[in-house]
Amino acid sequence: MNGKEERRGLAVLGSTGSIGTQALEVAAAHPDRLRVVALTAHTNVELLEEQARLHRPVLVGMVSPGAAAELRTRLAGTGIEVMAGTECLVEAAAYPLSDIVLNGVVGSAGLPPTLAALGAGKRLALANKESMVAGGELVLEALAAGGELIPVDSEHGAIFHCLRGEDLGEVETLVLTASGGPFYGRGRDELAGVTVEDALAHPTWNMGRKITIDSATLMNKGLEVIEAHYLFGMPYDAIRVVAHPQSVVHSLVEFRDGSMSAQLSLPDMRLPISLALSYPERWGPPFQRTELAALGGLTFGEIDRDAFGCLDLAYRAGREGGLATAVLNAANEVAVAAFLEGSIGFLDIERIIGDTLERYEPGRARSLDDVLRAEEWARAAAAETAGEVSGFA
Amino acid sequence: MNGKEERRGLAVLGSTGSIGTQALEVAAAHPDRLRVVALTAHTNVELLEEQARLHRPVLVGMVSPGAAAELRTRLAGTGIEVMAGTECLVEAAAYPLSDIVLNGVVGSAGLPPTLAALGAGKRLALANKESMVAGGELVLEALAAGGELIPVDSEHGAIFHCLRGEDLGEVETLVLTASGGPFYGRGRDELAGVTVEDALAHPTWNMGRKITIDSATLMNKGLEVIEAHYLFGMPYDAIRVVAHPQSVVHSLVEFRDGSMSAQLSLPDMRLPISLALSYPERWGPPFQRTELAALGGLTFGEIDRDAFGCLDLAYRAGREGGLATAVLNAANEVAVAAFLEGSIGFLDIERIIGDTLERYEPGRARSLDDVLRAEEWARAAAAETAGEVSGFA
Repeated sequence: MNGKEERRGLAVLGSTGSIGTQALEVAAAHPDRLRVVALTAHTNVELLEEQARLHRPVLVGMVSPGAAAELRTRLAGTGIEVMAGTECLVEAAAYPLSDIVLNGVVGSAGLPPTLAALGAGKRLALANKESMVAGGELVLEALAAGGELIPVDSEHGAIFHCLRGEDLGEVETLVLTASGGPFYGRGRDELAGVTVEDALAHPTWNMGRKITIDSATLMNKGLEVIEAHYLFGMPYDAIRVVAHPQSVVHSLVEFRDGSMSAQLSLPDMRLPISLALSYPERWGPPFQRTELAALGGLTFGEIDRDAFGCLDLAYRAGREGGLATAVLNAANEVAVAAFLEGSIGFLDIERIIGDTLERYEPGRARSLDDVLRAEEWARAAAAETAGEVSGFA
Repeated sequence: MNGKEERRGLAVLGSTGSIGTQALEVAAAHPDRLRVVALTAHTNVELLEEQARLHRPVLVGMVSPGAAAELRTRLAGTGIEVMAGTECLVEAAAYPLSDIVLNGVVGSAGLPPTLAALGAGKRLALANKESMVAGGELVLEALAAGGELIPVDSEHGAIFHCLRGEDLGEVETLVLTASGGPFYGRGRDELAGVTVEDALAHPTWNMGRKITIDSATLMNKGLEVIEAHYLFGMPYDAIRVVAHPQSVVHSLVEFRDGSMSAQLSLPDMRLPISLALSYPERWGPPFQRTELAALGGLTFGEIDRDAFGCLDLAYRAGREGGLATAVLNAANEVAVAAFLEGSIGFLDIERIIGDTLERYEPGRARSLDDVLRAEEWARAAAAETAGEVSGFA
């Protein structure tokens, strides 16, 4: 690291999570291109200290005040500023030294820093799909005013790249591929009794716990459908999901002439992260090279929408628009947490979200406060249903 | 057809062949975009008459003078001009009313009209890969001076589209997919006794006889490697061939970051033809829609280069450069014709080409005459070897 001017300042929000640690691997591989200027995490003091000592950011933040206090002690004398509390996310997102903000926060807590990064004119490398789901209209509004948004997840990253040099008006369908998660091929009856351990055993991607459960229920794909709607301005009827258990074709675009474009690579999040950070360039060498002849074969299948009801709930909320997707997302966060705690069953996740959506009264997302209020209501409603469900269990 | 000004004039060379007839299907599907102004064929009077009456071009030509005389009689009173002899190809290619020239001629006879179309500043939609193989350097020279070249075959069309909006400097490898032809998976021993009928039974593509045999020997893929070298300016080491029996992924581009882009569709030549004619637009509706979930699975494999020696011969000639690829191509044309006549065996095709390349003395392609002389020599040399081989058979 020699302070070359062409290096771009990088802030990583959620740096101790799965996306965050891999983003730092990408940064470490390209010290001539990127300089880590800010890092934030929730509670993992140990790892954040290690990352801070390695990457020497100017600012670090911990959402948990207790963890921040401990980190401040540990980093004494390094000259690194330590911030405490949720505000650190927004602070790091708008930090003057950063050019690129990688938002790897989990859940809709990612929305305020998403808005802050765009408001400050940064490139937002967005892994936090919940911020798009909870506040898609607000994000688009912020984006229209400034900044740049490049999706980091493999599906939207693939579509983003398939659309390079293309005219959006000639796109017929966006096709999101879904690994199908650990339960692909199982019927609804077989899903009732699955355990937390079963659901955490994802066949192709190694991810955080919340997103792994979302992947098992296919809510993850539902959130991605909503994200695609906002990111690419496509109607829900033009966004399809197809099962692809090998996770090599990361998504496709179908054009009006029937031609399809696809992006392929072995499942490794460092590639979509690198693509978002390097765009419009591409950085080598690759983290992994995909040998087509060594792949066992690529298959595609229909999703069993009866078994995996979360996908249709997402389409329903998406088509309803307004705050419905924020409600969907908040109810899902509560339900997944309850499932991870062991207090509800796997299919209860879908029931709780469906019940919450039923009870919700439509409203528009005019401000961040509107979103936060809708989420608060949805969390309470979902928690209530979860309590009833677990009481009955 | 109402003479709208935005319609582009289309000349189809080789209009009665497989590519030609499909190009006319594309034109018929888009009468508001294209107006057929010239058609040429070799000897098929009946079909050319039918096409002429349907599409009402201003000019038609037949390479065979006898056929031209008959066509002239048949088209008397239509006002359509009928030309005779090889010159009709060049005439139609440079015809003032045409904007786009689709070159669907078979064999290196396609080279003069390729040069003529570029020389006249047309868009050349090139299905005749032999003209690129025989005279690649001359074609590039002509292209540098004017005109536009868009490949029509499915592989180069796929790569062309994968490269839209991309920087060629960031491309690591071009990966041409090969169906493998009817003999994919067979060892060399099993190829010795195959019949003409076996070789003409292509599993995925319905094409002309010459290209179908080239597909069985994999020389077709060899010619495509050479074409890709010239079209995209990539060194031979950066052009790979991978077997893909389903012919759905039409080719791929691997970038320096390890990401791969691919173009997919059911095997149907009307799509790459349409892509070349419509570029940079895309025209709908599709001739066929690709339902991923209905595909049986996509597989990739290594080519058995011992069994299919023509591929290595093509790489060898390509790396040698100059007139070597013209010699390769001419020897292949002679050998394939001899195989189709039943006078030599399947593996003799490769032997005759290899022998001709051995005997050839390197030279540069400075002019069309150089190419024609090299081809003449190669045809004589290959015919000699073919005569010896069939004498021994």
